[in-house]
Amino acid sequence: MQLTNAARPATFEVEALNERGEMVPTSIAGEHPLTLYLDKREIVTLMTLGHAPEALVLGYLRNQRLVGSIEDIAAVQVDWDTDSAAVTTRRRSTRGLKQKMARRTVTTGCGQGTVFGDLMEEIAHVTLRDDLRLADAQLFDLIEKVRRHETIYKQAGAVHGCALAQCTGPAAAEILMFVEDVGRHNAVDAIAGRMWLEGIDGSDKIFYTTGRLTSEMVIKCTQMRMPFLVSRSGLTRMGYEIAHRVGLTMLGRASGRHYLVFTGAHRIERTAPQPTAFA
Amino acid sequence: MQLTNAARPATFEVEALNERGEMVPTSIAGEHPLTLYLDKREIVTLMTLGHAPEALVLGYLRNQRLVGSIEDIAAVQVDWDTDSAAVTTRRRSTRGLKQKMARRTVTTGCGQGTVFGDLMEEIAHVTLRDDLRLADAQLFDLIEKVRRHETIYKQAGAVHGCALAQCTGPAAAEILMFVEDVGRHNAVDAIAGRMWLEGIDGSDKIFYTTGRLTSEMVIKCTQMRMPFLVSRSGLTRMGYEIAHRVGLTMLGRASGRHYLVFTGAHRIERTAPQPTAFA
Repeated sequence: MQLTNAARPATFEVEALNERGEMVPTSIAGEHPLTLYLDKREIVTLMTLGHAPEALVLGYLRNQRLVGSIEDIAAVQVDWDTDSAAVTTRRRSTRGLKQKMARRTVTTGCGQGTVFGDLMEEIAHVTLRDDLRLADAQLFDLIEKVRRHETIYKQAGAVHGCALAQCTGPAAAEILMFVEDVGRHNAVDAIAGRMWLEGIDGSDKIFYTTGRLTSEMVIKCTQMRMPFLVSRSGLTRMGYEIAHRVGLTMLGRASGRHYLVFTGAHRIERTAPQPTAFA
Repeated sequence: MQLTNAARPATFEVEALNERGEMVPTSIAGEHPLTLYLDKREIVTLMTLGHAPEALVLGYLRNQRLVGSIEDIAAVQVDWDTDSAAVTTRRRSTRGLKQKMARRTVTTGCGQGTVFGDLMEEIAHVTLRDDLRLADAQLFDLIEKVRRHETIYKQAGAVHGCALAQCTGPAAAEILMFVEDVGRHNAVDAIAGRMWLEGIDGSDKIFYTTGRLTSEMVIKCTQMRMPFLVSRSGLTRMGYEIAHRVGLTMLGRASGRHYLVFTGAHRIERTAPQPTAFA
């Protein structure tokens, strides 16, 4: 596959005036329009940080089910001079595109607001692996690693982060990818795109997001076959209901050594030493 | 105008398992699909908390410029049995609808992700009032009032809040409306809808949001002619650039007695007593 590598700088510096009347240099997040063309047909304009635009475009096409297989894609060419991403398929395998694009749902999530067609029907047929467990010690390790990652990279405070993670020991987890974007659905799609490109199986992975657990977040996690979805934020009722229906293990308010398991609690094991009272 | 009054409960209680293995009742935000029909034509499905669905629908139609005047609307009927909002116009004044809907932009913002047509061109012709000033003492009063409002009403932690505010004295501001939604663009649109319905002029008002200042947030604030946009969060580069271009006074990181003015600093006056060092 032909693939550009057109990441943009994540932050820019501007001057701002603070409450004491002082000019302070301040980092702000990039935000760029990126218009996606699939075989020269305009699909959508995404507003993105531009951290991983090729992966974003691939993940968008995958999660919207606009292209069936990664093998169908011949090229992804991102050009910031024209703010465009041109995707070329091999077999013009985009039948039914018109129909898929006819029904729009403007979703709750940050970032992308468009879900075409019948994703809900599709995930009704997904079965998530049920032989896996996540120990709280592994979860705490993941939370700590995300915290350290953000300490290093987070500057502008207007972005959402998503991580793909894996357990690597009885009390250890590793971040495999970390993507930030101004819209958190872009971050999810960029991870999906890289997984698609690299042929990574999601069925034993953990998905972490800084953002809220809305219906769309749960749908995308399920599409990627991931049994674990972790957020430091809260959730919505539809997110809860869909997670319950598909049997996803969904944790919210995960921070430090705290968390709440909302659904799929049977996959969580408490193995970490419990803090003593007043410790 | 015929108008239903079909607000839904904002939060629901579910049981969650915490890190100590205890079941804790937890409030989660509602999230409901609401499909908007304009003269029986399906426009979009919004995912919403359902706090102010009629205002949301009106504001959506206004901010997307799908209906030109509030007088053109004969009825807004929200029916949660069918998750639908039926809007009827008087004059079938929705010419050019097809064309407007052809170009979609999936924006960065939380919530709604769709901007039709050429809003950017439209706001290029907006002139915001330049004879108004916002004193820091008024701003601090507004921040404190938002904080108190949220202390009372915020339960589920998965919602964004927006407020329409007005200065009422040299060190005083009042909240005129406060709307929460799972997507913050829904909250903005609901405020726009109520302003439209009640004929409220935005040109001397302050718009407050808990969410980030992205391009779409700045565009909507400008459409409502408001010269002041305040957020407790950060901003993006496009938000910054558009605010700069239209001459909006944009403040980020507004919390307690702190803020950063990014654009339009000439409208901000420092009148509050300055805290002494080490105070």
